Amino acid sequence: MTIPSINAERLLTDLTYLGQIGAGADGSIYRVAGSTADLAGRDWIDKTMRVAGLHTYRDETGNVFSRRQDSEGPWLLIGSHADTVPGGGYLDGAYGVIAAMEVLRTLHEADHPAAAHLETVAFWDEEGVTPQSNGGLVGSTALSNHPHIQDVHGYLELHVEQGPRMERAGLDLSAVTGIVGVRRFLVQVRGQENHAGTTPFALRADAGRVATRFSAALRDICQGVDEASIGNIGSIALEPDAPNVVPGAAKVQVEVRAGSEKSLDGIEEMLRETLQTIAAEEQCTAQMQTTSAKPVADFDTRLVDAVEEVCLHRSSKAERMLSYAGHDASVMSTRVPTAMIFVPSTGGYSHSNLEHTPDEQLVLGTQALLESVVAVSNIMLTQDVDSEHSLAA
Amino acid sequence: MTIPSINAERLLTDLTYLGQIGAGADGSIYRVAGSTADLAGRDWIDKTMRVAGLHTYRDETGNVFSRRQDSEGPWLLIGSHADTVPGGGYLDGAYGVIAAMEVLRTLHEADHPAAAHLETVAFWDEEGVTPQSNGGLVGSTALSNHPHIQDVHGYLELHVEQGPRMERAGLDLSAVTGIVGVRRFLVQVRGQENHAGTTPFALRADAGRVATRFSAALRDICQGVDEASIGNIGSIALEPDAPNVVPGAAKVQVEVRAGSEKSLDGIEEMLRETLQTIAAEEQCTAQMQTTSAKPVADFDTRLVDAVEEVCLHRSSKAERMLSYAGHDASVMSTRVPTAMIFVPSTGGYSHSNLEHTPDEQLVLGTQALLESVVAVSNIMLTQDVDSEHSLAA
Repeated sequence: MTIPSINAERLLTDLTYLGQIGAGADGSIYRVAGSTADLAGRDWIDKTMRVAGLHTYRDETGNVFSRRQDSEGPWLLIGSHADTVPGGGYLDGAYGVIAAMEVLRTLHEADHPAAAHLETVAFWDEEGVTPQSNGGLVGSTALSNHPHIQDVHGYLELHVEQGPRMERAGLDLSAVTGIVGVRRFLVQVRGQENHAGTTPFALRADAGRVATRFSAALRDICQGVDEASIGNIGSIALEPDAPNVVPGAAKVQVEVRAGSEKSLDGIEEMLRETLQTIAAEEQCTAQMQTTSAKPVADFDTRLVDAVEEVCLHRSSKAERMLSYAGHDASVMSTRVPTAMIFVPSTGGYSHSNLEHTPDEQLVLGTQALLESVVAVSNIMLTQDVDSEHSLAA
Repeated sequence: MTIPSINAERLLTDLTYLGQIGAGADGSIYRVAGSTADLAGRDWIDKTMRVAGLHTYRDETGNVFSRRQDSEGPWLLIGSHADTVPGGGYLDGAYGVIAAMEVLRTLHEADHPAAAHLETVAFWDEEGVTPQSNGGLVGSTALSNHPHIQDVHGYLELHVEQGPRMERAGLDLSAVTGIVGVRRFLVQVRGQENHAGTTPFALRADAGRVATRFSAALRDICQGVDEASIGNIGSIALEPDAPNVVPGAAKVQVEVRAGSEKSLDGIEEMLRETLQTIAAEEQCTAQMQTTSAKPVADFDTRLVDAVEEVCLHRSSKAERMLSYAGHDASVMSTRVPTAMIFVPSTGGYSHSNLEHTPDEQLVLGTQALLESVVAVSNIMLTQDVDSEHSLAA
């Protein structure tokens, strides 16, 4: 059976429409989970799918689902989140939701067999803006603990990259292999506060010097362990913070991201070693405390392969890549075979009104999602659908 | 004529007495310029010298002077300051004042010729604690602009080192060759604030990384230009100061101290060069702005030589050294030939109740001051006393 083409005009019109719900004067979007705009956006998604003749429903959390009236599980789930950060862009989350809606409608209208086991979702509160969000990924986490997850046998998510990598590399599409793990550390250094004039270098216990030497070493440590890893020092505080006083204490906040726990372990170990070496050289003491650790999300090999094949078929400018930002797919991958598709972000901007991707790439990405759905559905049909995690084998 | 010995018991008793004026329960001294305790301290100095049969007077600023009744100018001035920081120690300033009082009394009692042209001073407000102090050195600055300075032909000051160098080197006495110049800079870096996850290292303009790499380089730069120089980074601020955001801006406060303007120039030049190199490597821009510059005080060669000879005569553990903290002698050296003597500070502590120097070294330092007065007086007698700055030649 031939694979139908998505309706590019409908896709782009819907994107524009959802982007107007909660938009400020400068085009920044305020559709924080639970806000009036967010609820209006969800109503619009629900109504749009019902108007298209599809069955819609919401779970207790606020996730909005749609599928064919005569649909039967197990389902391949596609979607993303409908909420934004305050002052966000028109693509983060919304693109994946609307592309999923477009894919289901296209397959439904073409009466394609893949439509029978397809479900779309607009997840509740991915961004985690409010205190009760507890860091976000609320809707996908709720689904991962809901009985319905037993009837979901795979998850595909289309998203904008939110970084500059693809644009710089001239890519149209990426098959995402997984999501980096993120570890955060608080480094605390103790030295001896002292007169910056009368205390010679050799007799100092300069906590600030430990902090800066350690911070300056971060990049080489990351790159030495894993070229694809990254790290950041976003916050440094010296005490007592006076130009003529040798700092007696220092705090540094470190964040490290890598695509494997092995790399994260290696980087953490090197950081701890380096910190102790520098602290000893500077006659200080230091400790490094893990403040948070998000594990690596490894996507399903067979799904990633299928998605990659589709992407390469659609564009010669397609590659595998790792996601350096978190997504609902990260949570879903802990329960069902998962994969993602990225399209480029112009200038790498995200979480701002500068968020943009050329229309042709938005259309291309959505078509790639449709074709991935067809490919993955074929895999699913050839599997023993009764066994849980049937695609993971 | 034989050189008389100071009265060690009187010296130490007087030190204890002045140290009780303004002392808190833990022995920390609160004799901030202009406070009731400071005024009481000055009254006690004045009265003590009058009781010893000496002439005392105060100038408009609050400096307290004493000399022989029959004394005639030009005078060799000796002394230090009588005020303390809040919670200061019993030696900073007070030791130099009381030692000067002891030296004049001893020479006066022995009817030594050096007593005839000797004047003591307790300078007003060296520490500069209050806003109206304008950074301190108030009394010595006032004297340097007062007509009386024309009748002062030399200045000697005895002080505790306020740092750990002498104790570590096992020294009893130091002939101070000058006071370091101090330059302060504000470094401001501009980069590009960015998502710490999605922005690869190579595409970052990480202002924090410029700040930490630059800060970590300070010590080597100072040591490379002048081994005796020192520098300090006491304050660093990153913006927006969040663990998951690549810093878009950074501020660093740098302080550098060295014994020659040439060294300060060399260090400043290297700092500017290094900053620009690192900023360029990190795709950032940076500027370094001079926020203050205190010039180097070079003491008078002949006076320093004389003081050194005395010190070496008194102890085999005597050396020349540079002062890394400011003193009234710095101001005086701009107008009259000047030198200083240091005794060690136990543990390097100063500006706290931990300030201490063993009694034997306090006595030794005072005797060295007396002998330096005699030596410098002899130099003065052989000079054309009518020419200003007669010792500078």
